[in-house]
Amino acid sequence: MYSAGSLFQLLRDGRPRTRAELAAETGLARSTVTQRVDSLLASNLIGPADKAASTGGRPPTRFAFNPNARYVLAADIGATHARLALTDLAAQVLAQSADDLLVAAGPETVLDWIDRVGHDLIASAGRDPADLLGVGIGLPGPVEHSSGRPVSPPIMPGWDGFDVQGYLQDRFGAVALVDNDVNIMALGEHHVAWSDAPHMMFVKVATGIGSGLISDGRLHRGAQGAAGDMGHLQLPHGTDVVCRCGNTGCLEAVASGAAIAAKLAARGTEAKSSFDVVALARGGNIEALQLLRQAGRDIGEVLAAAVSLFNPSVIVIGGSLSQAGEHLIAGVREIVYRRSLPLATQDLRIVQSSTGDRAGIIGAAVMVVDHALAPAQVDLLMASAPAATVG
Amino acid sequence: MYSAGSLFQLLRDGRPRTRAELAAETGLARSTVTQRVDSLLASNLIGPADKAASTGGRPPTRFAFNPNARYVLAADIGATHARLALTDLAAQVLAQSADDLLVAAGPETVLDWIDRVGHDLIASAGRDPADLLGVGIGLPGPVEHSSGRPVSPPIMPGWDGFDVQGYLQDRFGAVALVDNDVNIMALGEHHVAWSDAPHMMFVKVATGIGSGLISDGRLHRGAQGAAGDMGHLQLPHGTDVVCRCGNTGCLEAVASGAAIAAKLAARGTEAKSSFDVVALARGGNIEALQLLRQAGRDIGEVLAAAVSLFNPSVIVIGGSLSQAGEHLIAGVREIVYRRSLPLATQDLRIVQSSTGDRAGIIGAAVMVVDHALAPAQVDLLMASAPAATVG
Repeated sequence: MYSAGSLFQLLRDGRPRTRAELAAETGLARSTVTQRVDSLLASNLIGPADKAASTGGRPPTRFAFNPNARYVLAADIGATHARLALTDLAAQVLAQSADDLLVAAGPETVLDWIDRVGHDLIASAGRDPADLLGVGIGLPGPVEHSSGRPVSPPIMPGWDGFDVQGYLQDRFGAVALVDNDVNIMALGEHHVAWSDAPHMMFVKVATGIGSGLISDGRLHRGAQGAAGDMGHLQLPHGTDVVCRCGNTGCLEAVASGAAIAAKLAARGTEAKSSFDVVALARGGNIEALQLLRQAGRDIGEVLAAAVSLFNPSVIVIGGSLSQAGEHLIAGVREIVYRRSLPLATQDLRIVQSSTGDRAGIIGAAVMVVDHALAPAQVDLLMASAPAATVG
Repeated sequence: MYSAGSLFQLLRDGRPRTRAELAAETGLARSTVTQRVDSLLASNLIGPADKAASTGGRPPTRFAFNPNARYVLAADIGATHARLALTDLAAQVLAQSADDLLVAAGPETVLDWIDRVGHDLIASAGRDPADLLGVGIGLPGPVEHSSGRPVSPPIMPGWDGFDVQGYLQDRFGAVALVDNDVNIMALGEHHVAWSDAPHMMFVKVATGIGSGLISDGRLHRGAQGAAGDMGHLQLPHGTDVVCRCGNTGCLEAVASGAAIAAKLAARGTEAKSSFDVVALARGGNIEALQLLRQAGRDIGEVLAAAVSLFNPSVIVIGGSLSQAGEHLIAGVREIVYRRSLPLATQDLRIVQSSTGDRAGIIGAAVMVVDHALAPAQVDLLMASAPAATVG
């Protein structure tokens, strides 16, 4: 039995349908379809699309998802950089803003920036503040998604246990959802490029290294929201490199952008960050290319075990270092296909991120849309919203 | 909006409810509740329970899930042993049978045993063959769950690609579902002991070693149904022990029941199997106890990475070797709590299986019940079934 919210899920694929087609697809009575469609039209979540072909007389109206009925604010906060976008309900970016901002400046500074810039984006776009569906935010540390609070984040002083969700909900008067930055990147990449792959692993290789797991089309967050934390797994062959976490031989201490920059600097090449490593690689610096390839192999050593355990159909390599060309990913493939179990790699694809630095923004929007446009939420939305004119 | 199938899900918790309580819980109109309850009564899936307290007059009837409306056949096939049980819809075993049977004898031999013994169990229990809800079977190798066929199983000659699902459906005239034995053990243990833990990892330590992953309350099977395959992950400290898979240093070649038996035999203690190892450990044999503790540590080395990646709230150690006492699990705990990330272990529990050798049978039944009593399936069931008398 389809509620209006369930019927709406069918239309979220963007394909317009007539009332008769919706009745055929759902098995609902025509009268019920008409009633549900009227509620959805009133909420503006669907609108009339093109006219359908008909054998004569007035052609029946087709209805389609209206991604502009509401909008979302999506924030991607990194260690030293913040992005904020206004997107439609299909997670398409309509306007955005970015700034150099230290997450270590603390939650009030960062969230006040989102408050100010978010309201500016809404005003510049000429949108009604009441049409904000919600705010999504990704943070560079572990987050308890259900409460919207960071949990012992290592590079975010002042954020531990801070009520990010409540703070944003107060400022915007709309639902706010919070997650780890790698989790939202996984959501964004999955939404844009791999929505037909139920099991996906997204690996972010940047200043740090982390991953996000998609299981049966949904984010696997784990008990503490810590799932996918692979930067501090120990490399099988062992190294004596000391990591910032206090252990030795962590993947991140050996294969991250920061680690490669340090190795280049030790050899006399000027490099301070992932950004420098990417620039050197693009410029054809042989040492940088060799180090990227070896970093890919080291990441592959850890991923080989993850592939056997999680059995994804695709691994997406993203993060700033993935933009340096094919050397990193070639190293990953070399080891994963050698070391993982044959069954788990028989159809496995290992590919570069197609969303690049937009993955986080898109994913933060998808997180909000998937939550707020779920059937039960849409039913609530329609029960509470004043009837809008059909646009 | 609740269909009869959705309404039924509420009642699956076993708690009886009146029509008024169902209306309050779902927000459905009383007339709709009455209609849905009548359909469910006719299908026999629910029945009247005790009379509710009332302030006067005839007390309103409470309705409850009727786990005896139908029954399930659940099979757990091991390398050398087969079990088959008849269970109710709450996965309670009503009758069972077991036999020494080599899976290597091939699919027809094993499935014909299930056919014969299954029909015997149904007849002995005096049940109507038409009331069989479905057949669930666990096999000791990788299975493509969607098609019900084994995929390159290493110890099951003749089974690769065999249509186990179709064969059983033909013999029993009911739906058949097939999965890997460790996956169904994970389902069984989760159902009995950990249904409130959304993220669980079940590790089977027996002749071989494998695991099953529960993500958000559902089995994570992975792209090839190969998820949880940890027996052939390489130990970080490396060993030169050759595994039956052709690689060296696999966990299973070092820490399985077969490996421990071989080590005992090499030291002059008579031991051929997991069974012998368990018997020696229970008898207080020091070498067996030391080897079990070291096997636990080796398993812990591999699990430490799995804990960081998957972030479960509980790890259950099952399989025959887990019945040898605390030494194995003590070794696992020793290493996991030392090596995994602090956030991922802060609330992590590592416990012994509470279902023991019943995990597989219970899980095979749960697999069938969860599939066949899902809302859409119940709606179909009621649309197609002849109205039964209310029992």
